[in-house]
Amino acid sequence: MIFRQRHLLDIESLSVEELTAILDLADRFLEISERPIKKVPTLRGRTVVNVFLEPSTRTRVSFEIAEKRLSADAVNVSGAGSSTSKGETLLDTVRNLEAMSPQIVVLRHQEAGAAHFLAARIDAAVVNAGDGAHAHPTQALLDCATLRRAKGRLAGLQVAIVGDLAHSRVARSDIVALRRLGAEVRVTGPRTMLPPGLAELGARVVPTLAAAVEGADAVIMLRIQAERAGGQCLFPSTREYARTFGLNAAALAGAHPEAIVLHPGPINRGVELAPELADGPRSVILEQVTYGVAVRMAVLYLLAGSPPVE
Amino acid sequence: MIFRQRHLLDIESLSVEELTAILDLADRFLEISERPIKKVPTLRGRTVVNVFLEPSTRTRVSFEIAEKRLSADAVNVSGAGSSTSKGETLLDTVRNLEAMSPQIVVLRHQEAGAAHFLAARIDAAVVNAGDGAHAHPTQALLDCATLRRAKGRLAGLQVAIVGDLAHSRVARSDIVALRRLGAEVRVTGPRTMLPPGLAELGARVVPTLAAAVEGADAVIMLRIQAERAGGQCLFPSTREYARTFGLNAAALAGAHPEAIVLHPGPINRGVELAPELADGPRSVILEQVTYGVAVRMAVLYLLAGSPPVE
Amino acid sequence: MIFRQRHLLDIESLSVEELTAILDLADRFLEISERPIKKVPTLRGRTVVNVFLEPSTRTRVSFEIAEKRLSADAVNVSGAGSSTSKGETLLDTVRNLEAMSPQIVVLRHQEAGAAHFLAARIDAAVVNAGDGAHAHPTQALLDCATLRRAKGRLAGLQVAIVGDLAHSRVARSDIVALRRLGAEVRVTGPRTMLPPGLAELGARVVPTLAAAVEGADAVIMLRIQAERAGGQCLFPSTREYARTFGLNAAALAGAHPEAIVLHPGPINRGVELAPELADGPRSVILEQVTYGVAVRMAVLYLLAGSPPVE
Repeated sequence: MIFRQRHLLDIESLSVEELTAILDLADRFLEISERPIKKVPTLRGRTVVNVFLEPSTRTRVSFEIAEKRLSADAVNVSGAGSSTSKGETLLDTVRNLEAMSPQIVVLRHQEAGAAHFLAARIDAAVVNAGDGAHAHPTQALLDCATLRRAKGRLAGLQVAIVGDLAHSRVARSDIVALRRLGAEVRVTGPRTMLPPGLAELGARVVPTLAAAVEGADAVIMLRIQAERAGGQCLFPSTREYARTFGLNAAALAGAHPEAIVLHPGPINRGVELAPELADGPRSVILEQVTYGVAVRMAVLYLLAGSPPVE
Repeated sequence: MIFRQRHLLDIESLSVEELTAILDLADRFLEISERPIKKVPTLRGRTVVNVFLEPSTRTRVSFEIAEKRLSADAVNVSGAGSSTSKGETLLDTVRNLEAMSPQIVVLRHQEAGAAHFLAARIDAAVVNAGDGAHAHPTQALLDCATLRRAKGRLAGLQVAIVGDLAHSRVARSDIVALRRLGAEVRVTGPRTMLPPGLAELGARVVPTLAAAVEGADAVIMLRIQAERAGGQCLFPSTREYARTFGLNAAALAGAHPEAIVLHPGPINRGVELAPELADGPRSVILEQVTYGVAVRMAVLYLLAGSPPVE
Repeated sequence: MIFRQRHLLDIESLSVEELTAILDLADRFLEISERPIKKVPTLRGRTVVNVFLEPSTRTRVSFEIAEKRLSADAVNVSGAGSSTSKGETLLDTVRNLEAMSPQIVVLRHQEAGAAHFLAARIDAAVVNAGDGAHAHPTQALLDCATLRRAKGRLAGLQVAIVGDLAHSRVARSDIVALRRLGAEVRVTGPRTMLPPGLAELGARVVPTLAAAVEGADAVIMLRIQAERAGGQCLFPSTREYARTFGLNAAALAGAHPEAIVLHPGPINRGVELAPELADGPRSVILEQVTYGVAVRMAVLYLLAGSPPVE
């Protein structure tokens, strides 16, 4: 067995073989999603607890559908109405959940490092469904799955990532995954949104949207995370942002003629992405959502099949 | 197959044969609800997403139980904690949900027309679980099922609908369904609560509760939707309302001796309906709830069985 | 059949034989929780509605996992987003839920007596999952299960219960269950937190933590329910509380050398319980959580198997 992970916490921990194993398995689960009866008995009798302490629709629903298609029992815990409102620590909450013997805990948390913290302290498998600005590994995996299915390969692809890289867990996980699987990555955005360390991750930082898009096979537009900016004014206005770093048909003209457009959603239409591109033939944004379920089925399957701990 | 709809958006779209097919099938599902094991494998491996962007307990739970009794995988999305709080549009939200391949999307939304808007733009079957003051077709269907089971027929029945018709999606759907199935409908309420167009729907508008109730086989009391009135003072006081348009035993005395009382719930006891009637032998309010699950099973069954969309 | 209850409302209603039957059955369900496939088909096709009108994570999740391991269809209703926000009474809410034919309704409510009130008025089996400061019978049962498994017996055990007995439904249910099963119970806490009537329940009230702990086989530390104190200042400060009634290693030294420590959670670490005890070898707090699922499976199983109500 190639896959030797007990948890899925970030992309950095995964070997090229493990990344490829997940994408290959996701392709097989994608076929199941196209059958009338989309269910396999793989995780029957296993419990998966989805702990979402930050608002999310699509990621939570994507995991929940993946779990149910694997026949797992899915139990949801959200921030509202949870014991965290009684002052209980995250660790206490999850230790208690773990004592109910779930096989897997899926965690979305506002603090970077939350999933690692838990994984070091509990026996259940932990899947990081987004921790602060740190990592969102299943999003990176579904982006890779989407690119590989659209282009037939990842090695040698030219991929641009544009926007708010400072607050984006998606960007960081994407860069690591794409580089590891052989793609070239250029990144750009307003200076206030480019954190240090991008070059060390293997991305080429370029100053303009035009430079990032030029000849690219794919452009991943990031969401402007206004709610995560902490009140600082990181760009003068959304109109100014749209003019300099928003992708529209004119800006995309510099890319490879068959370039595709990705976005992790939810889209700020008319800000980082023009509606005609979001809904146009070059967009693979809905494919990303579809492949998201298949990638999550693959991850849950591989973690559940890992050998028992100690 | 008589049932040719891809969606259930309103009563207007349904033929008499389709309405009758739903009621007949609901009768069969009602038997299943009375068995110790209330489950059939009809929708095994199909996903139904319940998108409730307006608060609701009974309708959401009724759909969820209907889905589980059909062995579907039910996934809930509510307003709180959803991506709509990140500024995503309804269409983006549901397109994303649809990309996860649900068979059916059940939508409760505060805007009239929301379900039609969606149905024109997505491939999954859409069930309107209430859109603003416009329509609530499964409520009308369960009212018809309740009346038909209690009275043995709908054709020729005299049905009164009383109260806040202006803000009631139930009233509108009820009038259309009852008329189409051959019942006579009289409506009344405070002048501020009677919208134009009721006569065009086929209802007879009468000025007083006594005129509406006289000789009626059934009285459907509407909920005073104080939270939907938009701050306008539509009636002087609840006491005044109860006195003029509230139904109690004295007011019901003018009806047919075996007249029954319906209410879509939740009841404002002592305002539109006296407690002794709500809980008395003439009330079929809890039957409405029971038949609601059966009617929703029938609708989901018929929509899932419709030919695949290319 | 020993178990003759239609509902589980409090411990007082259960005979010694019934209490023992639940604990024995929980031991068998505990084995199932240790299997890879933790599911039995017992409640297939039955619906259980979890009505939690007070915030709770662990109890709600524990019931939900228990229900799913018994193959029941679990439907959740929480305070937020429910019709109670439309002014519907508890009875109307639950009567409506009942009309959808659930086998069992699990109720958490902020008012003492809510579960009894319902049970007298509906046909479905009612499980009290905590009603105000009154009762929390499944917590008492899981405490008994934990003690019996750790010590091999309950008869003759010396058990101390320490803390806010006035606001604790756990304490009241624990005292009754432990006394009925033959254990001795000593209780202590700040004078403002000791309600009248503890001696009548069979507990020995002692003035100090040292007196309660001395020679005890087990110490049950209660949570300081700051949110339930209603704004009154029941103790000078948490530091003062920790000094006089908080359990730490020094205070536990007076107990039996193999004494164990229980807490219903969530823990206020460093207030009522020192972290080194909470996470130490004498703590059985996570076992309580694990046994909680097994005890709830046993209760649901026994209630579902009770003869049908005419």
